[in-house]
Amino acid sequence: MSSDGPDHMSSQDFRRHGYALIDWIANYWEGVESMPVLADVAPGEIRSRLPNFAPEAPEPFESILSDLDKIVLPGITHWQNPNWFAYFPANSSPPSVLAELVSAGLGVQGMLWSTSPAVTEIETQVMDWLVDLLDLPQPWKTTSEGGGVLQMSASDSTHTALVVARHKASAVNNVDASSMVVYTSSQAHSSIEKGARIAGYGHIRLIEVDANQAMVSSALDAAIRKDLDSGLTPVFVGAAVGTTGTTGVDPIREIGIIAATHNLWLHVDAAYAGSAMICAEFRHHQDGLELAHSYTFNPHKWMMVNFDCSAFFVSDRKPLIDCLSILPPYLKDEASESGAVIDYRDWHVPLGRRFRALKLWWVLRSYGAEGIREMIRHHVSLADYFASLIIKDSRFELVAPHPFALVCFRCTAGREATQALTAAVNATGNFYWTGSTLNDEPMIRVSIGQTKTTKEHVDRLWKTLSDLA
Amino acid sequence: MSSDGPDHMSSQDFRRHGYALIDWIANYWEGVESMPVLADVAPGEIRSRLPNFAPEAPEPFESILSDLDKIVLPGITHWQNPNWFAYFPANSSPPSVLAELVSAGLGVQGMLWSTSPAVTEIETQVMDWLVDLLDLPQPWKTTSEGGGVLQMSASDSTHTALVVARHKASAVNNVDASSMVVYTSSQAHSSIEKGARIAGYGHIRLIEVDANQAMVSSALDAAIRKDLDSGLTPVFVGAAVGTTGTTGVDPIREIGIIAATHNLWLHVDAAYAGSAMICAEFRHHQDGLELAHSYTFNPHKWMMVNFDCSAFFVSDRKPLIDCLSILPPYLKDEASESGAVIDYRDWHVPLGRRFRALKLWWVLRSYGAEGIREMIRHHVSLADYFASLIIKDSRFELVAPHPFALVCFRCTAGREATQALTAAVNATGNFYWTGSTLNDEPMIRVSIGQTKTTKEHVDRLWKTLSDLA
Repeated sequence: MSSDGPDHMSSQDFRRHGYALIDWIANYWEGVESMPVLADVAPGEIRSRLPNFAPEAPEPFESILSDLDKIVLPGITHWQNPNWFAYFPANSSPPSVLAELVSAGLGVQGMLWSTSPAVTEIETQVMDWLVDLLDLPQPWKTTSEGGGVLQMSASDSTHTALVVARHKASAVNNVDASSMVVYTSSQAHSSIEKGARIAGYGHIRLIEVDANQAMVSSALDAAIRKDLDSGLTPVFVGAAVGTTGTTGVDPIREIGIIAATHNLWLHVDAAYAGSAMICAEFRHHQDGLELAHSYTFNPHKWMMVNFDCSAFFVSDRKPLIDCLSILPPYLKDEASESGAVIDYRDWHVPLGRRFRALKLWWVLRSYGAEGIREMIRHHVSLADYFASLIIKDSRFELVAPHPFALVCFRCTAGREATQALTAAVNATGNFYWTGSTLNDEPMIRVSIGQTKTTKEHVDRLWKTLSDLA
Repeated sequence: MSSDGPDHMSSQDFRRHGYALIDWIANYWEGVESMPVLADVAPGEIRSRLPNFAPEAPEPFESILSDLDKIVLPGITHWQNPNWFAYFPANSSPPSVLAELVSAGLGVQGMLWSTSPAVTEIETQVMDWLVDLLDLPQPWKTTSEGGGVLQMSASDSTHTALVVARHKASAVNNVDASSMVVYTSSQAHSSIEKGARIAGYGHIRLIEVDANQAMVSSALDAAIRKDLDSGLTPVFVGAAVGTTGTTGVDPIREIGIIAATHNLWLHVDAAYAGSAMICAEFRHHQDGLELAHSYTFNPHKWMMVNFDCSAFFVSDRKPLIDCLSILPPYLKDEASESGAVIDYRDWHVPLGRRFRALKLWWVLRSYGAEGIREMIRHHVSLADYFASLIIKDSRFELVAPHPFALVCFRCTAGREATQALTAAVNATGNFYWTGSTLNDEPMIRVSIGQTKTTKEHVDRLWKTLSDLA
């Protein structure tokens, strides 16, 4: 017999190091606002501070802790800085981080119900909670025909929906994926095009949008009919409640009726805006959702649950499980065979899964529905306020409606002015926002959603951009 | 303007709650050995303890902490119990858990290099470290043509390889995926069949294995030729270094030569056994790896890095990026356009990604290569020891070689005896192992790899099974 393995950190040392890191994180959060939002390093700079080979001998905790400050932090772009106005938020909260710690400590892998029933059942219950919280269609609950599952990202959810739709269409129509068509708007997230390519679809049609950046449903219908006339097989429509470019809202009901007419799968991507549906005043945007076959939104964007935590719902779980279930002998399991349990391995590409539901449960309980509503309304009111400043200043103009907490604008002086302003504000290091384009014209996206962003941060952003414009 | 959003946990409270949870985890680890390994709850039992609706009002930390003990723990199957002998391990370590805490605290999303350069560059460097640590082919380093990336699971890695191979074959042969064929052994992990179905391949051939549970390469060659004769397009071979059933090792070099002859993509799945390659004495099992196009192994199985952390390598990153890169305007980025950086969004299905490399870096530094080698050798020696006990007892027989730390055996008294023993040992609650089948005959898999498993645990397992047999 050889030794009993390597020396492990003692319980006492784990406690000591754990406290130190809890303090390190608390200090980080206290100080993050004063750090440059966008990491100011050159390509390769962080890497050059690391040795070329893994160490042979163990290194003490203190060396690693010290490298957090010396090597890691300079290479961090601070998504948790309240001056974060880029992309969409990946907002977080202390309860979420505590839950992640516990999840890591438990170290369980919930591929089957039996490999940790709590992982599955807490997830199932919390996903069902979300149906009521967001006023999603009741059949989406696991107590009905549908169900929800956590995935890593909306890209994974969308890809899964594309695969199930393809699988179903292939069985019905006996055609190759290369003749199948996916439809989405020209403003849809890239994950639909990427997912379609990964799932092997032969065609994708980007349908035109109207002045509100919403899909023109008559154009969708025309495109489907044209493809049918050409002998192709229309299979999948991806509609958005809150596009990535400008948070445009597609007419879900109109699209759903067209999809039903032609027997297409309707997937709704509400990755960002889905969290807002916890407030009744936004729910008119999701009118028609009962026509959807699948739906995704990301609690890790705007529900104070740290990345990764993407919610995926299907109106009928049977085609999903039929498509993804494969049962080798080493995964045979009494509880699974009884049919009395959910095995989430059959709900997504990966087999293994960590205990992600814990943080969603923890956050919902720590803030309550009312706390999350307050956060959403707070951010939306800040966006309304920021938009009002833009509207009042003739140097700027809004380029799209702002139904949620993203404001898109440009400089009236033209594209160079917009691009220069985008760069100038980011160059201060005090803020980070994202430049993009709409109809090939540059625009600036101001996304308000970091957990701790207040009116003061928005005022400072306004003052800076106003001075620099 | 509305309020400033919900009340957030104060820095002081976060510290206090954080210390409490660090203690909770340390206590859990101290006590986990005495808990029943497999959760003893009925389907629905955990769920029935949860309310039907999310709370409206915030709940105090203390209520949630108390529910960890009352609701969560009874539903946990304890993967971190040293009496875990089931499936493969998902072993973990205190340094890994500390790193997960920091990753959650930083709350960054590393989809692009610029959204946190440290997330990308530490990952790149550590993946390059692994090439040397495991003696993988040098061209797999990012400093050469290849590169490594962390994915969530080996299923994701394998699926990605299947998609890239399909994409490439489709461009070259101009044929539909429905006419493409995937080959793997009858002992391959289900993720290859599942991935092939998800990627839309029309055919999968399960090639026979020899007495060592290794793919018969001449049978592979014959199957490819037969499919070619039928007008199908052979595209992908999945070979294993350590199958899930019995840790059989496919002849990678022979398979690689056949794959090259017919221009097939060779993917090697070493999900479990890959970690062992840190010890030179196991590397003969991966002879021929330079012929592979892609490779996956899971540090989250047997390298003390908690789930999820799956390493995926390609010998040439160009086809991968060509297949998966989609560039919408809101993701346009100066650093990306310069070509000087890696954007890992183009290396997998998801766009967003968390800072998973931190724990791999932290664990490699905390134990050093020598510590990890010691752990691997320790587990392998325990498996050798357990196998020697089986061999000496005429009531049992090994059913396959045990090149790593999985021992597969059965009762010589027949299938009922084997099945009864499988259940009886699990019913004690003191151990958890997995029953499976080989050639339709029941067998028992004893997988030794939990971080703290020692000879004493193996001796107690032996005594229990010996008494119960």
